[in-house]
Amino acid sequence: MSKAEPTQTPSAGEPRLSRASAARFSLYLRPLEHWHQAGLRTVSSGQLGEAVGITDAQVRKDLTYLGSLGHPGVGYPTEELVLALRRALGIDRTWAVVLVGVGNLARALLRYRGFEQQGFRIVAVFDSDPGKIGQEVEGLEIHGLDRLPAVVAARGAELGLLTVPIESAQAVAEALAAAGIRGILNFAPLCLKPPPGVSLVSVDLAVQMEQLAFLVQLENGERPLTTR
Amino acid sequence: MSKAEPTQTPSAGEPRLSRASAARFSLYLRPLEHWHQAGLRTVSSGQLGEAVGITDAQVRKDLTYLGSLGHPGVGYPTEELVLALRRALGIDRTWAVVLVGVGNLARALLRYRGFEQQGFRIVAVFDSDPGKIGQEVEGLEIHGLDRLPAVVAARGAELGLLTVPIESAQAVAEALAAAGIRGILNFAPLCLKPPPGVSLVSVDLAVQMEQLAFLVQLENGERPLTTR
Repeated sequence: MSKAEPTQTPSAGEPRLSRASAARFSLYLRPLEHWHQAGLRTVSSGQLGEAVGITDAQVRKDLTYLGSLGHPGVGYPTEELVLALRRALGIDRTWAVVLVGVGNLARALLRYRGFEQQGFRIVAVFDSDPGKIGQEVEGLEIHGLDRLPAVVAARGAELGLLTVPIESAQAVAEALAAAGIRGILNFAPLCLKPPPGVSLVSVDLAVQMEQLAFLVQLENGERPLTTR
Repeated sequence: MSKAEPTQTPSAGEPRLSRASAARFSLYLRPLEHWHQAGLRTVSSGQLGEAVGITDAQVRKDLTYLGSLGHPGVGYPTEELVLALRRALGIDRTWAVVLVGVGNLARALLRYRGFEQQGFRIVAVFDSDPGKIGQEVEGLEIHGLDRLPAVVAARGAELGLLTVPIESAQAVAEALAAAGIRGILNFAPLCLKPPPGVSLVSVDLAVQMEQLAFLVQLENGERPLTTR
């Protein structure tokens, strides 16, 4: 921590964290939290790089964004590094999350321990099916979509998980935006247009599968990947 | 297609597709397949870039890997582009996939239309729970893990979906490798060590959520992201 006071607005002379660096920050957090819990006091850029498959030079470059945390020959203090990474990512607080679309994926996400561990709390669930509305899932009452604005406001929810079918995804995204949601994690396999002022991250599971197929073929030298 | 014959081995003088380009190829495919089905004959790099949030210059650069497909002022022929992208990614064929760990996430993945659309067919499911073995899920019999080698060989499966708890993920990954699986899509929120010769893609849903939180704050100017 080289400065005593946090700066509240970005200024041109200061480095900004790129989205790619932010993605790597998330990757670094996982082994670091594990090591911290296991009592490891310091870690090296080499250890961290090996754990996540990134060169130690890139690790050191990324971590300079956090200020002067590391010491040559000693490494980075594990706990401080975890805290600094969480602060940079904006997860040194909890986020209230609503979920729309109660199917199997929703049930899996409601039980997914990783969200709660990182400060994401699913506080309300919604569905358009009259047969589901009023029922409970993982201890939460299923609301109709008409209740979105009231529940989002009452629970202070800022993020939305979208697990509805392709056909209704765009309309529900807009309803979430209108209700005051500021970020949407979309699981429907389509190109969603983010409503104005709303951030969007899409999880396309088939893309992950395609990347895997690509890597398998690369590993086996089956695809020359020429300009043909 | 500027060359009549496909090259079967990579040679030093030819550009190789990077993993980042391959990831973008997957992104390009989604709107292209949609447009192709809708009867659109040609697309421009600008349209494609806008649909996936990438500059048209980057789109054009990426697509040069596919050879001379585009024509200035006319654009790219949609159908040829879809076929060339699928070939480059290695999904101009079907892949047989096994799934291990039958919980809610598995049930969601078994119903996920996106996999089958892209040529990934889940052909067998496994679990270690004696209470589940022998039962059916989405029309597939649940096998015990002892049957992995026999079933993988019989079905010609090459990829594995890993939806087991954190505690057993590493052991099951090794069992998949021993059974002949060449690529694993891992959903357990931990740093899995890929067994030798096996490609690994990990889907950490909390990472996606963290990226979303980061973007929301960036959008709202709440995080200065200085070197503090």
